Parts: sequence; structure tokens; C-alpha cells
Amino acid sequence: MLGARCLLQALRSCSSAPCARPRAPAALSVRDALRARGASGERVKVQGWIRSARSQKEVLFLHVNDGSSLESLQVVADSSFDSRELAFGSSVEAQGQLVKSPSRGQNVELKAEKIEVIGNCDAKAFPIKYKERHPLEYLRQYPHLRCRTNALASILRVRSEATAAVHSFFKPSSKTKVPKENFFNVPAFLTVSGQLHLEVMSGAFTRVFTIGPTFRAENSQSRRHLAEFYMVEAEISFVESLQDLMQVMEGLFKSTTMMVLSNCPKDVELCHKFIAPGHKDRLEHMLKNNFLTISYTEAVEILKQASENFTFTPEWGVDLQTEHEKYLVKHCGNIPVFVINYPLALKPFYMRDNEDGPHHTVAAVDLLVPGVGELIGGSLREERYHFLEQRLARSGLTEAYQWYLDLRRFGSVPHGGFGMGFERYLQCILGVDNIKDVIPFPRFTHSCLL
Amino acid sequence: MLGARCLLQALRSCSSAPCARPRAPAALSVRDALRARGASGERVKVQGWIRSARSQKEVLFLHVNDGSSLESLQVVADSSFDSRELAFGSSVEAQGQLVKSPSRGQNVELKAEKIEVIGNCDAKAFPIKYKERHPLEYLRQYPHLRCRTNALASILRVRSEATAAVHSFFKPSSKTKVPKENFFNVPAFLTVSGQLHLEVMSGAFTRVFTIGPTFRAENSQSRRHLAEFYMVEAEISFVESLQDLMQVMEGLFKSTTMMVLSNCPKDVELCHKFIAPGHKDRLEHMLKNNFLTISYTEAVEILKQASENFTFTPEWGVDLQTEHEKYLVKHCGNIPVFVINYPLALKPFYMRDNEDGPHHTVAAVDLLVPGVGELIGGSLREERYHFLEQRLARSGLTEAYQWYLDLRRFGSVPHGGFGMGFERYLQCILGVDNIKDVIPFPRFTHSCLL
Repeated sequence: MLGARCLLQALRSCSSAPCARPRAPAALSVRDALRARGASGERVKVQGWIRSARSQKEVLFLHVNDGSSLESLQVVADSSFDSRELAFGSSVEAQGQLVKSPSRGQNVELKAEKIEVIGNCDAKAFPIKYKERHPLEYLRQYPHLRCRTNALASILRVRSEATAAVHSFFKPSSKTKVPKENFFNVPAFLTVSGQLHLEVMSGAFTRVFTIGPTFRAENSQSRRHLAEFYMVEAEISFVESLQDLMQVMEGLFKSTTMMVLSNCPKDVELCHKFIAPGHKDRLEHMLKNNFLTISYTEAVEILKQASENFTFTPEWGVDLQTEHEKYLVKHCGNIPVFVINYPLALKPFYMRDNEDGPHHTVAAVDLLVPGVGELIGGSLREERYHFLEQRLARSGLTEAYQWYLDLRRFGSVPHGGFGMGFERYLQCILGVDNIKDVIPFPRFTHSCLL
Repeated sequence: MLGARCLLQALRSCSSAPCARPRAPAALSVRDALRARGASGERVKVQGWIRSARSQKEVLFLHVNDGSSLESLQVVADSSFDSRELAFGSSVEAQGQLVKSPSRGQNVELKAEKIEVIGNCDAKAFPIKYKERHPLEYLRQYPHLRCRTNALASILRVRSEATAAVHSFFKPSSKTKVPKENFFNVPAFLTVSGQLHLEVMSGAFTRVFTIGPTFRAENSQSRRHLAEFYMVEAEISFVESLQDLMQVMEGLFKSTTMMVLSNCPKDVELCHKFIAPGHKDRLEHMLKNNFLTISYTEAVEILKQASENFTFTPEWGVDLQTEHEKYLVKHCGNIPVFVINYPLALKPFYMRDNEDGPHHTVAAVDLLVPGVGELIGGSLREERYHFLEQRLARSGLTEAYQWYLDLRRFGSVPHGGFGMGFERYLQCILGVDNIKDVIPFPRFTHSCLL
């Protein structure tokens, strides 16, 4: 027995010791290589996929990309390295010295001493063609390959940064000093549960948030709907009014966007340049203005006075349609606008009764943004036991929601929360028209390619 | 029209201006109040739930907790404030001065000038009783209320910290300097997709990770299984060997744990003191030792030589059972142990063929840890087109996985990845016996209480 134990330890020390063969230089990401402004001639190894290969008389130029940044690293080699395999799409490993680049548009290039093709790319069969700017619709057919294009890679890097930005808005690292109003003191729970479950947590932690997948069986082929989408949800205890919530919503939108703009400016620029020309100005306009607020009742008045011919006639007590939302945002000067206090009859049982009249409303809020429409929906929750009990009884839900009523029996607090569609948020800041292009693997009615 | 627009702006400026009524002092979380070492007599407002109420001749002592920390804030008031409503479980808002506390065990207390009961708590009906230490099994019946206890609140705060720690292991903030080996240059994608989809991404971004819900329809009532659990998955391109992967796994375990220990020491301490006495030493033992490595073949040999009577006879070519995993970990001195190179016939088509004999294996790895068993599972992936094609053909899967084969046709790279059960990780570091106690809303066979 002891023998086996010794064997294990021997094995272990073997595996952690460097192997006998001489070790190659450490691998560097393309992003880190490009940042190495010193270019001291250090020997490095870079791995990635060939974005372009150009052979001149005596020199071979490769552009290698590994997804760590939009920019590729220029690899320069003696033309003796040239081979048919060093072509667009192939994966390679290049070793050599990082040197100052004489070319414009880059500080650094790799003077290659060794280039190895890791995996060939069958150019004829590869649906992504060299130097072609494929429409997003075309790329959508190839969910397993499309992130090899600049456009999708940029969008997905922005998605990643935005995820991180949402986390740091709600839960800044304990080492960072942040303004108090951004400070969620709270557990970040990743759950599929949604609002009612978050309310359970907010009954002990005061401020909670979650980001994760959400499912809707809506039979929609629209450019704004998915069967599986991601939602950022927050729930806050001891709020005093809808304004408290709206402040958090506006803060979330603006902080997250500022962080994305500062952490991946080139990826955002690519979208604003090639996918949605003119969107940069539209986004700046949203960021520099205070969001507006109108009541649902005012919204209906505005729509009734509009000269536009709506398919659905605007009327108090009826849901706002996409065309109405569009009109309202435009009417408000293409600034995001909060619409508050919706008819009680239109909204679910948990929204807080405003006890007003003659038009009976609840403390609900939707944030409408240019190009996308509804981005965030939220409300104060009905924290008063008897109000909630009556609403549940009227809907015949009392038994199923006994646990939810319980939350109002044992130390209830005024609270509210909201949910933001994460893909719609990305559409809004990048100007990407179709929601299917801001998620790696879109699933929607009759389509689950991957 | 212009009129309506002006109205909006008027409304807006109204809503953002301070209201006429005098504003209460800013609300402070209990954690921030306790940290205010200066205790300069600043007027503050604290909101939360009463954990204890004690009335002496002329003074009333309340302990108020809001979930931001394990510790409660002591609120001291004139006994004239006393009322039957100021009882365990009620929610309150207290205003007053933060002053130095004469009591032991706290630096600061709140000298209350105003105490308001926000929501009563029906003590008779409230399933959580004052001063009682309820067993975790008992609390499991009340998923909507159990986070009002110290034990569950601590566990869930640790869960939140661990989530953040996983994120920062894989994607450190761009402002932080971190050692190279911890640096994932990469997009963080939250998806339900799992490994094969991550492989798609790793074919463009080299290093990707995800953390999110995963579903299994296993009919298990065990203390280690859930129908819905959370998984941390990573996929890394250009890996050279299983050792590369194992280094990342060990780094993930140790970095995440160190960060949790440093960010919520009191919550961990509570678990190690009351839920799993002795676990502190066991965890330290895991952290200070290098993880061990044995091959599957060696593992079977060790089991065959064991004097223990196993229910399942250990045999080459057969899966390791829980009892075997337990024995192996114990045999290795209660240090986490990597078991590598499993029989090809036991493992799915995508694991990389070791081309060995006579016992044919694949480059798979499982990390076994004390108390929990399998914590992480991973493998090198078969990146060679013809190997993968044959394995798929043998399983009759060629057509369904054409897209997956495609990844090997267009610039394939050696890569590998792993998945860590997030709840099992929490069990492992906290010593919590039942997996249902480390997730807010456990769902398992025949049980989806919430």
C-alpha cells in the first residue's frame, strides 16, 4: 500500500517538473503581443488563425488573430516558409522575435523563426471567404463558424464586457472605491428563477441581482424576440418610490455602457462603422441626456394627438404596441423614456396598487429606448398583505402563492425590482438590428440550429 | 405637441429635484455601519430585520440584520420605544447616531432617535423560532424563508463570493495586474449550452468560460445530486497535454477558495464552526498540498489491493463508483487527486484517443476531492478529423454532428476543457453535507418546492 502511495508522489513530482525536451517560449495572446510596445526583441510564441496571407518576392506576411482583440498580429517571415497550407482560416503557431514594425497601423510585428500549421482549412468548403464582408443574415446559417469573422467576434467581445460590466455595477470588487449609489451590498445569485424568487432573497439580503437565461414560448420571428434570452434582474428592499428604481435602471444602463466603451472601444467602433453607421451619435445622445419620464396616461394622450396613422388605435386601458413605443421615443427626442403607472387591469397581481382613480393604476415602469422599444420592465411590488391577498383571490391563485403571501406575513418591506433584456441592451448600444446576432447560439420559434 | 414635450421636461426636472419634505439621512447597510470605526456621531438610517429584541429597565436593545454581513447592528433606544411589534423577524427602520459601543464584541452601535416597524412578523406562525438552531433538514421545508437564518445567509453569501471569485479567476479586471498563468484573455459567455458549444467559441477566442444552470434528469435522492445545478465550464485552445488542463483546474480551486476565505471569513467560520466542525483543518490540508495524480489503471490496482469490501468489485474497464472514489481520496491522504486516462469504451466520442494498448484509453481527467468525490471532469478533445469521424461513425452520430466535425476541417487546434459542479465545490469548501443547502432553490427528483 505504501508502495502505491510512493508511486503517486513520484508520479506527481515527475508531472510538475519541466520535461526533458527544451521548452518553447511562453505563448502570448495577440492582444498582449500588440501591447508590448517595448518590442525588445523578446522571443515569443503566438497561436491563432490566419486572417490573411500575402507573399512578396522574399517576404511572407501573415495576419494572425486569436480572438483576444479585433486587431491581428503581423507575422513576417522569409518566403522560404511559404506553403499552400499557410492560408486564410488555418490555425498556426509562430515563434520568433517581437520587433518594432516599419509598417503603418501597428507598432509591433513578429519576426518569425518558426511557423507551424496546426490545422488546415479547406478553403473551398469554408463558408467564410477571404476578404468578403458577409451579411449577418448569411453568417447566421453557420452558428458554429461565424465567430471567426470580425463582426461576430467584436459583438461577442462586447457581450462579454457588458456581462462583466453588469456584474461590477451591482457588485463592485471590495477593493474598488465606488460611489455609494452604485453600491449593491449583495449576493449575486445566478438563477433561472426570475423575479418572485429574487423577492424571496430580497427579504433577507435587501439588494439582489441575477443574470441568466430565461425562456419564452412566444411564437415570434421578430428581430427583437428569442425563445431563450438573457435577463438582468434586480430586486431592492426598502425602496420608497418608482423614482428610486428608475435611478438604478438609468445608472445600470449608463455605467455599463461607459465601461463597455472604455474597455473595448475598437469592437464598438467596428459595429458603429460597418453594422450601424450613425449609431455612435445616437448612443452619445442617449448617454449625455437625462432619461425622461411620462405616465402611461400622458403617453396615451400623446399618441391620441399624434398625426400618425397607427394600426392599433391608442386607448386608455389597452397595452402599448411596438408602433406606439416607437412613436413615443421619437416624440421624446430619441432619448430613453420611462413610462410609469400602467392600468391595474393590464398588469400582474404582484404590482403595487396606486389606489388612484378614476383610472386605477399600479406602480409599474417600462423603459423605452430608441430602435429597440421596451428594454427594461419593472415595478414596485405589493408588499401589503391584504392588498396582495385580494388580488390573488380575484385571480384564483391564493393557494399556489401561499408562500409568496407568507413573505408579507413575516417582516414585509416595501420593495421593487426590474428585468432588463440583455440582448436588447446589446442591440441598443451597438445598433445591431437583429437580436439573433448578439447571442452566440440564437434559439427561436422553429429554429435551434445548435 | 411642443406643449407635451415641455411637460415631459418639467416632469423630469421635478422628479430629479429633491422633494419638498425634509429628507431622512442616507440609508447605510449594516456592514457599512459596522465598519464606520470613526463613529463620529453621524446621523444615519439603517433598515433590516430584527434578530433579537431585549428590553432592560430603561433601555431597549435590538439587533438588526440586513443580509449584508453575518453580524447584526446593535440598536440602543430609550425603553419608551418598546412595543410588542419590535420582535424577532419584524422589519424595521432605525434612525439615529452611530456611536462607539461600550459593549464587548462590537465597535459601533446605533443610538436610535426613531424606530419604525415596517412589517410585523407573526411569531406564532413564523417557522423560524427565536434563538433556536434549526437543523438544515428542517429549514429545507421553507425555501422562501430559510435565508432569514444565519446559516443559510452565510452559505449564500459565500456562494455569491465564490461566483465572483470564479469570474475574476477567468477574467480579471483589466485594471488588475495578475500572474500570467491565471489570465484568460477571453469573453465570458453565460450560456446553458455546455461543452460542445464552448468548443465552437474556443475555435475563435482560444480561452472561454461559462457559469450557469445545467439540467440532469437523474433519478437520484443523493446528497450530491440535483436536477438543476450550476456548472463552471472552461475550454482552452492550443493545450499540449492533460497537465496544462490540470494546472488550470488546481488554480481555479485554490484561487477561488483563497478569495472566498479572504472576502467572507466570518461566513466561512460560521460553517466550519457549527455546520462542519473540523472542516477548517481539512480545507487547509487541501489548500497547502499539491494535488496528486494517478492514472485510472493505477487507481484500479490500488482498489484491487485494498482490504476494504466494496459493493462493486473494482475492475479495469468499469466505471469507478462513489465508494471507490471515497477510498482513493482517503488512500491519497485526503488530498484532492486527479485520475487520468480512462478506458476509451467508457467515455464519450469527443475525448482524445491516447492510441495506447493493450488497454485503450482516452485523455480524460476527473478531480476527486474529500467528502464530495468527483468535483471536476474534463478531457482533451479529439481535434483530429479522421479519429473523430471514425468515433462518430461507430456511434451512428455522423449526421447529427456534422457541424462538430466541421470545426476540425477549418483550422482545427488541440484543445481541452472541463466542467466543475459549482454546488459540489461549495460543499467541499464549507463542509456542507447536503447539496440542497448550498443553492437557494434546490430542485430534484419529485421536488420543486419553489
